Amino acid sequence: MSDVRMRGFKQRMEVRRFQALIRERIRPLGVETIDLACAGRRVLAEHVVSEVDVPAFSRSAMDGYALRSEETFGAGPYNPLSFKVIGEITPGSVFPGVLGPGQAVRIMTGAPIPEGADAVLMAEYASESNGVMAASEAVTPRKNIGRIGEDIKAGSQVFRSGRCLRAQDLGVLASIGVARLQVRNAPGVTLLITGNELLKPGEKPRGAMIVDSNSLMLTALIERDGGRVADVRHLPDDRERIRDSLLNAPGDILVITGGTSVGVEDHAPTLIAEEGELLAHGIAMRPSAPTGFGWVAERPVFLLPGNPVSCLAAYDFFVGLALRLMGGRPESWPYRSARLPLTERISSQIGRVDYARVKLVDEGAKVLATSGASALSTTTVADGFVVIDQDSEGFAAGEQAKVWLYD
Amino acid sequence: MSDVRMRGFKQRMEVRRFQALIRERIRPLGVETIDLACAGRRVLAEHVVSEVDVPAFSRSAMDGYALRSEETFGAGPYNPLSFKVIGEITPGSVFPGVLGPGQAVRIMTGAPIPEGADAVLMAEYASESNGVMAASEAVTPRKNIGRIGEDIKAGSQVFRSGRCLRAQDLGVLASIGVARLQVRNAPGVTLLITGNELLKPGEKPRGAMIVDSNSLMLTALIERDGGRVADVRHLPDDRERIRDSLLNAPGDILVITGGTSVGVEDHAPTLIAEEGELLAHGIAMRPSAPTGFGWVAERPVFLLPGNPVSCLAAYDFFVGLALRLMGGRPESWPYRSARLPLTERISSQIGRVDYARVKLVDEGAKVLATSGASALSTTTVADGFVVIDQDSEGFAAGEQAKVWLYD
Repeated sequence: MSDVRMRGFKQRMEVRRFQALIRERIRPLGVETIDLACAGRRVLAEHVVSEVDVPAFSRSAMDGYALRSEETFGAGPYNPLSFKVIGEITPGSVFPGVLGPGQAVRIMTGAPIPEGADAVLMAEYASESNGVMAASEAVTPRKNIGRIGEDIKAGSQVFRSGRCLRAQDLGVLASIGVARLQVRNAPGVTLLITGNELLKPGEKPRGAMIVDSNSLMLTALIERDGGRVADVRHLPDDRERIRDSLLNAPGDILVITGGTSVGVEDHAPTLIAEEGELLAHGIAMRPSAPTGFGWVAERPVFLLPGNPVSCLAAYDFFVGLALRLMGGRPESWPYRSARLPLTERISSQIGRVDYARVKLVDEGAKVLATSGASALSTTTVADGFVVIDQDSEGFAAGEQAKVWLYD
Repeated sequence: MSDVRMRGFKQRMEVRRFQALIRERIRPLGVETIDLACAGRRVLAEHVVSEVDVPAFSRSAMDGYALRSEETFGAGPYNPLSFKVIGEITPGSVFPGVLGPGQAVRIMTGAPIPEGADAVLMAEYASESNGVMAASEAVTPRKNIGRIGEDIKAGSQVFRSGRCLRAQDLGVLASIGVARLQVRNAPGVTLLITGNELLKPGEKPRGAMIVDSNSLMLTALIERDGGRVADVRHLPDDRERIRDSLLNAPGDILVITGGTSVGVEDHAPTLIAEEGELLAHGIAMRPSAPTGFGWVAERPVFLLPGNPVSCLAAYDFFVGLALRLMGGRPESWPYRSARLPLTERISSQIGRVDYARVKLVDEGAKVLATSGASALSTTTVADGFVVIDQDSEGFAAGEQAKVWLYD
């Protein structure tokens, strides 16, 4: 068995075929009903139709005086017209009477227009003393009045299912009286971090032991992509313990790091084949070749390389895609991008995707590293990365490339 | 008093002066020490120097065989050279002996190189049976060996103070054995949501009462900018209750919405002047004119208009800036932007900043609204916004404008 596993990958799957396989197999999760206050950045899983008009009453758009507009006609700075101020109305209250001829009601922004009035004169064009207001400007009917349903009409669709809720969306949902709403479940991910050589984050490296750098990195990436970490398990390279977690760990999706290649301690690929389906193992990508994808106990399982740069790239190419699909989000990367000239050439092989880390310099983007899967510091010194597609032999010096920015 | 307040703003401060005032007055907060696991997106407040080499030992970069490279010279597919396999070494363990002439040790990626070996032959170029390995390729000294400190050298500076920590940064910090680290405090914000007309989010609008749409929106924006909400208080337009919160509410910064203009119920500006300093009130911006900034009880206080579009724009122009400065983050907006032609002209007044909501269409960006401070739905139908600077009279149809994208 161990000798078979020491042979290397016989063939490597194309990155785009691997991604197509993910799109074929991964389906959006179910839905849950949550409080509006928790709905920021969640994906709506229902069409929202407003049951109410916003505003539900005519309201003043200004601080000023509610009056009958026709009675202001002819008013001007040198021809002020007088109105009797019969009261004041502030937001949240309703004027008890009806406004009659020659009368005005002092009114604040947002307060309901009193019956009998059809316009609001801005405070700037009014002066008041001893209960009499002098208007120095004429207003037309409906001037400075917010109509019923001006913001949102009762019966109108406010949001469609699938929308990722923005800050202001929460405000609109509050304004139409929504208390709870249906959203797509956030995919729960269990991380199985395997390797006899691994210490947990927070420990000091010692002897032949190194500290796991993948679990914290993956946790941050999973949260960025709308997922949540259901559990993190640090496991030794112990076949039966890995098998047990493969079958029994919580979560909608499992991500196994380490032990995913073809070495003697690489149990995960054969375990997936034994307990379910190993759909892909080994990809034409540098770094990240020892990446895999399978299905066990009715859920997807990803195998990510233990080398941290490979782990980061494989997460971004495959697991992030799966999480966004499960969560009903757009497929596209959450990184910003910019087209920039490369300061030197990058060469790659046809048939293989390369993940080159680059630094922004005055002249454009400078390549820091294309190999070095174990040197995570190349991704922290870098400002972003360039993907060299499988159909490309690379870029010439000075050629424009799409740079994906880590920030 | 109420008559004075009904006069409108006598003069309006330029937006850029208001922002300069914020930069003058706001200082970064203090620091705290937190667990590495909680440090994602936090701002580092110390330089981090590694105490260790990563890796701390020479390790194999491949699955294969550790051996003496000079003994492989001349090996090829038609001239395999034999080695006696004297053991196996996996990550986390140390080979107990010293490799002698003609010997090889089976080694996995990440395992320490045994004493006596100076290279690793990839498994793909080796075949093993009955304890003998046949090498079909020659390797040069140090081939497939990760050097001590190759990723990070002991004594080197890994991150500078001020860095906003990315996913992969957490991995690097774990790998050098960091357990806790110093980060800038996240600014705590108390929201005072004032207005007799306001119901709390989750309630149904009724009569002259409307539902507060600002608190949930602001909470999401504050979290985006690295702040945390210390408290949310819904208060009626009651001078003494607002005063009490102004003086006694928790948080590094207060944000008051509603009652910030010049109407009879607009208590906040005069309260700030009574209890501290009202540094600015009324700005040359549409919407958001009734925005203010002051200092009470040794902390900044912002006055934001109650109208939700004004509240959103004023948050983004001023409060977000203050929070990012307090948290040690870059000043720039967290929105992506794109240069796009406008489908029609927008006109604005010299001296005033306009916040125009736009929708992306095939031809570019279409203006949806420049006024309508109360219609929050204009910001949810829109894909982004265009800022018309105070020195500009607007844009001609077809002219390129910088569009800030809400997503």
